[in-house]
Amino acid sequence: MPYQRLIADAMAAAVPHLHRGRVADYIPALAAADPSSFGMALATVDGEVHGVGDFERAFSIQSISKLFTLTLTLALGGDGLWERVGREPSGTPFNSLVQLEFEDGVPRNPFINAGALVVTDRLHSLTGDAAETVREFLRAESGAVIGTDAEVAVSEAGHGHRNSALAHFLASYGNLENPVATVLDHYYAHCAIAASCRDLALAGGFLARHGVRADGTRLLTRSEAKRVNAVMLTCGTYDAAGEFAYRVGLPGKSGVGGGILAVLPGVGAICVWSPGLDAQGNSVAGVAALDAFTTATGLSVF
Amino acid sequence: MPYQRLIADAMAAAVPHLHRGRVADYIPALAAADPSSFGMALATVDGEVHGVGDFERAFSIQSISKLFTLTLTLALGGDGLWERVGREPSGTPFNSLVQLEFEDGVPRNPFINAGALVVTDRLHSLTGDAAETVREFLRAESGAVIGTDAEVAVSEAGHGHRNSALAHFLASYGNLENPVATVLDHYYAHCAIAASCRDLALAGGFLARHGVRADGTRLLTRSEAKRVNAVMLTCGTYDAAGEFAYRVGLPGKSGVGGGILAVLPGVGAICVWSPGLDAQGNSVAGVAALDAFTTATGLSVF
Amino acid sequence: MPYQRLIADAMAAAVPHLHRGRVADYIPALAAADPSSFGMALATVDGEVHGVGDFERAFSIQSISKLFTLTLTLALGGDGLWERVGREPSGTPFNSLVQLEFEDGVPRNPFINAGALVVTDRLHSLTGDAAETVREFLRAESGAVIGTDAEVAVSEAGHGHRNSALAHFLASYGNLENPVATVLDHYYAHCAIAASCRDLALAGGFLARHGVRADGTRLLTRSEAKRVNAVMLTCGTYDAAGEFAYRVGLPGKSGVGGGILAVLPGVGAICVWSPGLDAQGNSVAGVAALDAFTTATGLSVF
Amino acid sequence: MPYQRLIADAMAAAVPHLHRGRVADYIPALAAADPSSFGMALATVDGEVHGVGDFERAFSIQSISKLFTLTLTLALGGDGLWERVGREPSGTPFNSLVQLEFEDGVPRNPFINAGALVVTDRLHSLTGDAAETVREFLRAESGAVIGTDAEVAVSEAGHGHRNSALAHFLASYGNLENPVATVLDHYYAHCAIAASCRDLALAGGFLARHGVRADGTRLLTRSEAKRVNAVMLTCGTYDAAGEFAYRVGLPGKSGVGGGILAVLPGVGAICVWSPGLDAQGNSVAGVAALDAFTTATGLSVF
Repeated sequence: MPYQRLIADAMAAAVPHLHRGRVADYIPALAAADPSSFGMALATVDGEVHGVGDFERAFSIQSISKLFTLTLTLALGGDGLWERVGREPSGTPFNSLVQLEFEDGVPRNPFINAGALVVTDRLHSLTGDAAETVREFLRAESGAVIGTDAEVAVSEAGHGHRNSALAHFLASYGNLENPVATVLDHYYAHCAIAASCRDLALAGGFLARHGVRADGTRLLTRSEAKRVNAVMLTCGTYDAAGEFAYRVGLPGKSGVGGGILAVLPGVGAICVWSPGLDAQGNSVAGVAALDAFTTATGLSVF
Repeated sequence: MPYQRLIADAMAAAVPHLHRGRVADYIPALAAADPSSFGMALATVDGEVHGVGDFERAFSIQSISKLFTLTLTLALGGDGLWERVGREPSGTPFNSLVQLEFEDGVPRNPFINAGALVVTDRLHSLTGDAAETVREFLRAESGAVIGTDAEVAVSEAGHGHRNSALAHFLASYGNLENPVATVLDHYYAHCAIAASCRDLALAGGFLARHGVRADGTRLLTRSEAKRVNAVMLTCGTYDAAGEFAYRVGLPGKSGVGGGILAVLPGVGAICVWSPGLDAQGNSVAGVAALDAFTTATGLSVF
Repeated sequence: MPYQRLIADAMAAAVPHLHRGRVADYIPALAAADPSSFGMALATVDGEVHGVGDFERAFSIQSISKLFTLTLTLALGGDGLWERVGREPSGTPFNSLVQLEFEDGVPRNPFINAGALVVTDRLHSLTGDAAETVREFLRAESGAVIGTDAEVAVSEAGHGHRNSALAHFLASYGNLENPVATVLDHYYAHCAIAASCRDLALAGGFLARHGVRADGTRLLTRSEAKRVNAVMLTCGTYDAAGEFAYRVGLPGKSGVGGGILAVLPGVGAICVWSPGLDAQGNSVAGVAALDAFTTATGLSVF
Repeated sequence: MPYQRLIADAMAAAVPHLHRGRVADYIPALAAADPSSFGMALATVDGEVHGVGDFERAFSIQSISKLFTLTLTLALGGDGLWERVGREPSGTPFNSLVQLEFEDGVPRNPFINAGALVVTDRLHSLTGDAAETVREFLRAESGAVIGTDAEVAVSEAGHGHRNSALAHFLASYGNLENPVATVLDHYYAHCAIAASCRDLALAGGFLARHGVRADGTRLLTRSEAKRVNAVMLTCGTYDAAGEFAYRVGLPGKSGVGGGILAVLPGVGAICVWSPGLDAQGNSVAGVAALDAFTTATGLSVF
C-alpha cells in the first residue's frame, strides 16, 4: 500500500481536531506542550518507516511505556506475572483504588496504574533496573538515542500522591517485591522516557511480527504476542477501550503525553502523537488520525 | 480453506474438555442438558454451512440473543440507544447492581443483564414485540423453524429475582419505557429461544459480511457492524472478555446454555455448543474448540 | 418538669425553621402537605400527654412504622431476626443497593429500606398480617382510631421501583419468606399509617419504660428495649444519625412524612411533626424543636 | 455508688473472657502482650480514682489517642475541622479506602484511620507538634509521666502501608496541609503513647464534666463535649458501634492495644484494658467488663 500517502491523508483528517483536546496540565513539563503539534509514523514489518509532521520529535511517552514493561517482563520472567495482575478490562477510571480493594490487591490488568506498578516491580526484580531495561530495548529497536526526561520524572513524582497511595496499597497486600520508593522511581523514570513516533513505531514492530524483534530474534512466543495484543485492545486506552476498539479497531496503547501506539498485525506498527487529550486521556487528533487511516485502508481487525 | 476438516479437528481438540465444565443448574430445564453434547458449525459469507457433532440440534441460546436484540435495535432505531446504555467493558461479574448505581442507571454495555434489559425495552418500543422480532430475524437468516422454549422462559422468570431487581432499578432511574413485567417477559422469551449451531452461524453471517444480510440487503452500516464486533470482543463473554480475546482472538458472544457465536470478519460466522460452563459462564469445550480452530487457521484478529 | 411550657418553648424555637425544608414530593399525597404545619407531643412514662400545635392531627408516619415492626418482630419472634438483618449503621444513603450486594443480601440494619423489608417479611410470617399487627398495636397504646391511608399506600406502590428492586434483590439471596408482592404490600401499608403526634408519643412509651406497655404488660425485655434504643440512636435518622445524636442526643426515628419519634429513657416519649425535610429526609423544624427541648432540659443522653 | 466494689464485680465478670480474644499481632511489640492482663479504673467527675487489676500498668493506647487529637483540635481550631472530615458512622471496616474515594477525600468521621490522619494533620498545623500536644494533655490531666513507646511507633511505621496509602490518597485530594511523612510520624507517635487505665480515666474526665478539665478550666463548650460523645457513641468502636451501643450503652473509644475509654456523662470516665481482641478489634474482656458494669449500675445512656 502507498503508506506515505495514506498517513498524510490521515494527518489531513486529524488537523481539524488539533485544538479540540486539552493538554495534560497536572505538571508544568507536560502543560507546556503545544496542542498544535502532530506527528505520525508507520513502521512496516520489514523496518521501512513512513512519517508525517513531527514524527521525529521526541515526546513524553508516559503510559505507552507500560506496553514495553509488560512485554519485557513476560519475555524475561514468563507467565508467573499473571498471578499478580489480571488480564481483564477494569470498567472504572484508570487510577481507581476501589476495584483493587475488592480484589485483594490484584490489579485488573497491567495497563491501569496499579497493574503497571506491579509489572514495574517484577521487571525490576528480574533485571535490577526496570527503567534502563525499557530504555535499552527502545534504543535497540529504534537505533535512536533514548533517555528519560528527568524534569518530567521529578515533577511527576512530586504530584504523584495517587500513585504513592496505589503502591503502598499494593505493598499492604504483599504485591510488591521491592521498596515502594524504588518501584515509584522506576515507574516515573520509564513513563518520562522521551521518544518520537518513529522510534515507537519501530519499537512496536515485534507485535506486528508476532513476537519477533527487528534483528530477527524472538522476544515473545506467538501466543504471548497475541496475548499482549488482546490486552491492548481490551485495556489499552483507559476507560475508552470499547470506543477505541470501535473507532480504530486496532490494539493500541495511549499515554497522557498525547501518543498512541497501535498494531497492525502482520503489517506494521503505527504511532501518532498530538498532545490535546479527550476526557478519557487519549489524544483527540491521534484517535481521529487512526480512525481515518483504518477507515481508508480497511485495516481494522473487525 | 478446508473448513469441514478444520472444524472436525477443533471438535477433536475439544472432546477432552467435555466433562470439565458445569452445566447451568439454576433452572431444571437447563440442568437437564447433557454435558457430553457438542456441536459446531461454520457458515461462510457465501452461505455455505459446515458442521460437526450435534450442529443441527437446537439448544437454549440464552445471552446469544443479546447480540440480535442489539443489532435489530440499532438497525431499527439507530444511535439513540447509546444514550441509554454504554459501550465499555464492565469489569464486574455480569449481573452486578453496583456499577449501575454508581453510573445513575446507565448500564455499562448492552451485554450485561442490565444493558440487555434496556435494549429489549427499546426494541419492544420500536416493534411492539421484541421477542418475536428476534425469532423472525433468526427464521429469515437460517430458514429454520425457530421458537421459544416456553418451559425455559417460565422457569427463568420464576428464578429471576435478580433480573426483576435490575429491571425495577432501571425503571427507578427512568431508563425503561415499557412496564417492568413486559420487558422481563420479552427478555425471558428471547433468551429462551431454541436454535442450533447451524441456525446461529447463518444468523451471525451479517457481521462477517460487514452488515449485509443473507439476502443481500443491508442490516447495519459497515460502521455499525464494526461497532457490534467491537462490543462483542470487549464485552461479549461476561467477565472473561480479556481471556477470550487472547485465547480465541475473535469477537464472540456466549450464553449459559453453552453456546458461543463468534465472527470471522470477511470469512464467516462460527457457532459452537457444549453445555459445560467455566466459572465465568462460558462453555469450556466451546472455548477449547474455538481456541484450536483459530490456532490452526491463524484466523484470529490479532 | 413543666413539660407543657417546655414543649411550647421548643415549638417557638422551631417556628423560624418551618419553611426551610422541602416537603417530600415523590407522590402527590405527600406533596400536598402544608410546610407550615407543626405539632409536638410528650407522653410521660405515666401516660400523661402534653401537646402543642397540630399534635392531634394525623400525618403519614412513613418510616416511623419501622420502629414498631422491629419491636413487634422482636417481641413475637425473638432474636432470630438478627441472623437476617444487621445492627450497625449503614454509612450510605438509605436506599442504596450497594452495601446489600457486598454483604450477601443481609441489610446492615432494620431501618434502611432493605432491612425494613426483611423485618416486615418476618413479622408477616409471625402474624399473618404485618400491617394490621402494627395498626393494632398503635390502637392499643394510643386508644385512637388508627388506619392506613390507602391513597398514600397505592401511590407509593406506584412509585416504588427502588423498593421493588430491593425486595427482589433480597429474594434473590433467599432473605424473604413471603412473596415479594406480599411483602411490598404490607410494607407500603404500614408506612402509610396515619397517626398523630399524640398517638405516636403514647405508642413509643414502652421504650421510655424499658420495655413495658401502657397496660403494664411487658413487650420487650429490658435488654431488648435497650437494643432498640441503641439501633434508633445509631441508625434511626437515615444518613444523619451522627448529626442527630449530636444535636438532639436522644434515640429517635424519623419518617419522610415529617414526623420524628424520640425517646427520653425513664421519662417519656416525644413526637414532633412538620413536613419540611432536610437533604437527609429529616424534618427541619422537628429537629430544631427537639434540639431546643433537649438543650433547655438537659435531657440528652450525653 | 460503691464504685470500688462495682468495678471489682465487673472484673470478675470479665475474667472468663480473658483468653477468648486474639492479641493484635501485626507488629511484634503488640504481639508480646499477655492476653491474661486486665485492668480497669473509674475516675469520678471529682477526680477520685477507683481501680482493679493492672490499672496502673501502661499499655499502648493506639486509637484511643484519636479521642484526644479530636478534642484538642476542636479546642484549638474550632469547627473548621468539620469541613475536612465528616461526623457520620462509616459502615465499612475501619481502614477502607472505598468510601474515601466515593466521597472525594473527605473521611466519614474522625475515628476511622483516614479521618484520624486529617485530624492529626490539622492538630499539627495548629500546634507545630501534634504528638507532643497529646502527650502534654495526658500528663496534665493524669499527673503521670507519659511518653511514646518508640519501638511501637517505629514498628507500626514499618508495617503501615495501608496508612501510607490513606495519607497519600488524602493528599491527592488536597486534604492534608503537612507533608505525608510528617503526618504519619505524628500519627504513629500519638498512637504509640503508653498510658494506664488510671491515666486515661483521668484524662477522659472532661467529657464526663461536659467539657471542663481537671483544673476547672473549660476545654470544650458543653455543645462540643456533647458532639464528641455523640461521635464516640456512633463511631468509636470501629465496625461494631451498634453492638457496643447496645451492650454497653455508653460513648466509648477503643484501641487495638486492648484499651477502651468510656464516658458516664455527669458521673465519670472509665477505662478498661485487656489485650485479647474480637474480630472488630475491640477488647473482648474489656467489653464484657463494661457490659457487666452498666448492667449492674443501670448507668447506660439508654
